[in-house]
Amino acid sequence: MSFVKTPVKGMPEYLPTDMDVREYAIRKIKDTYRKYGFSLIETPAIEHIENLTGKQGGENEQLIFKILKRGEKLNESLSEGVDALVDSGLRYDLTVPLSRFYANNVSHLPTPFKALQIGSVWRADRPQKGRFRQFTQCDIDILGDKSTLAEIELISATADMLSRFNLGQFTIRLNDRRLLKAMALSCDMPEDQLNTVFIILDKMDKVGLTGVQEMLIEAGLKNESVEKYCMLFQNADQLTDPSFLRDHQIDRHMDPSVLPNLKAIMEIVEKNLPSDGRIVFDPTLVRGMSYYTGPIFEISLEKFNLSVAGGGRYDEMIGKYLGSPVPACGFSIGLERILTVIKENNIQLDTPQTGVAFLLEQGITREQMSETLLQANQMREEGTRVLIAHRNNNAKFQKSQLSALGYQKFIEVFKK
Amino acid sequence: MSFVKTPVKGMPEYLPTDMDVREYAIRKIKDTYRKYGFSLIETPAIEHIENLTGKQGGENEQLIFKILKRGEKLNESLSEGVDALVDSGLRYDLTVPLSRFYANNVSHLPTPFKALQIGSVWRADRPQKGRFRQFTQCDIDILGDKSTLAEIELISATADMLSRFNLGQFTIRLNDRRLLKAMALSCDMPEDQLNTVFIILDKMDKVGLTGVQEMLIEAGLKNESVEKYCMLFQNADQLTDPSFLRDHQIDRHMDPSVLPNLKAIMEIVEKNLPSDGRIVFDPTLVRGMSYYTGPIFEISLEKFNLSVAGGGRYDEMIGKYLGSPVPACGFSIGLERILTVIKENNIQLDTPQTGVAFLLEQGITREQMSETLLQANQMREEGTRVLIAHRNNNAKFQKSQLSALGYQKFIEVFKK
Repeated sequence: MSFVKTPVKGMPEYLPTDMDVREYAIRKIKDTYRKYGFSLIETPAIEHIENLTGKQGGENEQLIFKILKRGEKLNESLSEGVDALVDSGLRYDLTVPLSRFYANNVSHLPTPFKALQIGSVWRADRPQKGRFRQFTQCDIDILGDKSTLAEIELISATADMLSRFNLGQFTIRLNDRRLLKAMALSCDMPEDQLNTVFIILDKMDKVGLTGVQEMLIEAGLKNESVEKYCMLFQNADQLTDPSFLRDHQIDRHMDPSVLPNLKAIMEIVEKNLPSDGRIVFDPTLVRGMSYYTGPIFEISLEKFNLSVAGGGRYDEMIGKYLGSPVPACGFSIGLERILTVIKENNIQLDTPQTGVAFLLEQGITREQMSETLLQANQMREEGTRVLIAHRNNNAKFQKSQLSALGYQKFIEVFKK
Repeated sequence: MSFVKTPVKGMPEYLPTDMDVREYAIRKIKDTYRKYGFSLIETPAIEHIENLTGKQGGENEQLIFKILKRGEKLNESLSEGVDALVDSGLRYDLTVPLSRFYANNVSHLPTPFKALQIGSVWRADRPQKGRFRQFTQCDIDILGDKSTLAEIELISATADMLSRFNLGQFTIRLNDRRLLKAMALSCDMPEDQLNTVFIILDKMDKVGLTGVQEMLIEAGLKNESVEKYCMLFQNADQLTDPSFLRDHQIDRHMDPSVLPNLKAIMEIVEKNLPSDGRIVFDPTLVRGMSYYTGPIFEISLEKFNLSVAGGGRYDEMIGKYLGSPVPACGFSIGLERILTVIKENNIQLDTPQTGVAFLLEQGITREQMSETLLQANQMREEGTRVLIAHRNNNAKFQKSQLSALGYQKFIEVFKK
């Protein structure tokens, strides 16, 4: 037999000490979001292939783990090419399944519905250090609320949650897809090229404004448009000034509520922010997914220069399942990113594992064993974590291994 | 676009009220097993196809959700038939991944290692009422302990855990694979037919001893063997009597420790049992999986006539990954079975969800919204679950839906 003992390429596995940190973080996340009135739901890992490949997932649709049909249906499809072999796949995010879930269960859910999901997603990405092909997303979403209250609650709750991890200063960056679009249109960028423009703009933090300018020209956009467009970003601080938007004819391409709403979100969130958070307007923020239709936002940790959460409004996705439109807005954090920061920076958890270990000499009598168990169960009843094991020949090593799992007290039981 | 709003066939999804019960149960299970010194670990959902089809999974190997290869490797395999298209699959239990995990991480783990796993498994079974193709197993396993302490701790911990759910009387049934085997061999059943014999014996509770007798004959086993075999079960209460085993030459086919060990497990477990549990010897207990090598056990709820947990010793599986043998013993409960009992019998949870909901009239001022949020965040800080939503036109319906989620107090904020 040829069994393989390493995990499938890119798949993570978690040792007890890893799990302590995971459990700690997940409990903290659940407890915080619960206080904000988000209700846990769960969708299955496996999703219809039609839903996963419906152009909602952007480049994630290239990364699906596809599941083979079974039995008769597989046999019937064998001659019809690869696509016909597959009827489902593993979810690559929690947003597509949530949309389907909401459409399927809408009659059992309140309006608006505040959902919390914590679950694995799978992407057949190129595996690299610290990046796995199975990872955990923690998503909060508010479905059925078209007002800015949704954005405000999502951002406030996530800021509160992050603050509880003591990871230092963090910055919430805010933008609006409609402003992004209006800026590009005001520079005569062709509508069917907007995605290309945004993908390039998204690289601003890596290549700077000059780099963006060069890449836009290379992508075949008109010199004049590109110059005008880059000038807007040179005056980024004026982009929240209505007269600037008017002067540059940006307002003509945009709903008049966009700017006031952005300002309302900024202002109200700011009043409720913990002291380690700040919120800023960032006109270069793009967010990868094309399904966003309004405000978009991201949180990064200053000290680690690391984006840990992202989200935005996606008012058009659920309608594709339900038939009628439902406004929706969500915020997603990557659990492993936060855990990596906690682990690599030796940030102390405030609820460490503790416990008592009984170590029994081999060959103790049945009565001794029975007594030990009674004693241990008494301690367990009182809430103590108690491990009972036979004492190994190398008891010193055994104790050091158990210490690493949090057992600090050892009671040795020897043969009578 | 043709999006599908129902889940993939046989896949479950959980509404907030379902999740309340799930979370409650999972927390209870974790807390209890943690006290017994079991450490949480997690393995990925996706496992090597070689490991899943290595004859360790019994008939579950027919039910694997198989995952298609990707990219170049898929193209290269297209002409080589269905098996070549696949490189991995979803785990159908937690035991095969645990064995791989232990072999892969043995140097980081104490001996013995007490593992707790709570995770989804997938089986492409025929979907039927109350039976899903994705479900949750809660497994505890003790690896590296060849003594009966492992069985005793597994059974005691699971009994303690079950007792905390207040599901009424439960019975732990105990047997040993080696006794099963010795009984069959003592009746001259051929060794290569033992699996057939056990599969038939396993139907005892459905067809009775006469039914088993008929089926054994039908399966082609010798009349004389079958009669002798069934006679043993008619004297089931004598099967723990050494002289009976000697008279019927059962002891010749069995290690002399089998019976004393069974008795030690029974006796010590009994002393530590909660008042709603009892442990009995049941020579007809088979347990489906062929990997068991010693004691096997099962727990059923008396009132619901429902088996909720099963396990046993499997000393030979890990060696297939590690190269050297490692004794192992595990106990697995099906979370959904327990949840179904709780739900269908209206068993009350002792920690119900509570909360306060602010309902805001549409069009309240920015100041009012800001004030409400400050007030809500104050309450959240104090530990209260607070939902803020706009007041719907049908506020009565909205309140009744929120009541179902546990919100009992409503604060309405009207336009100034």
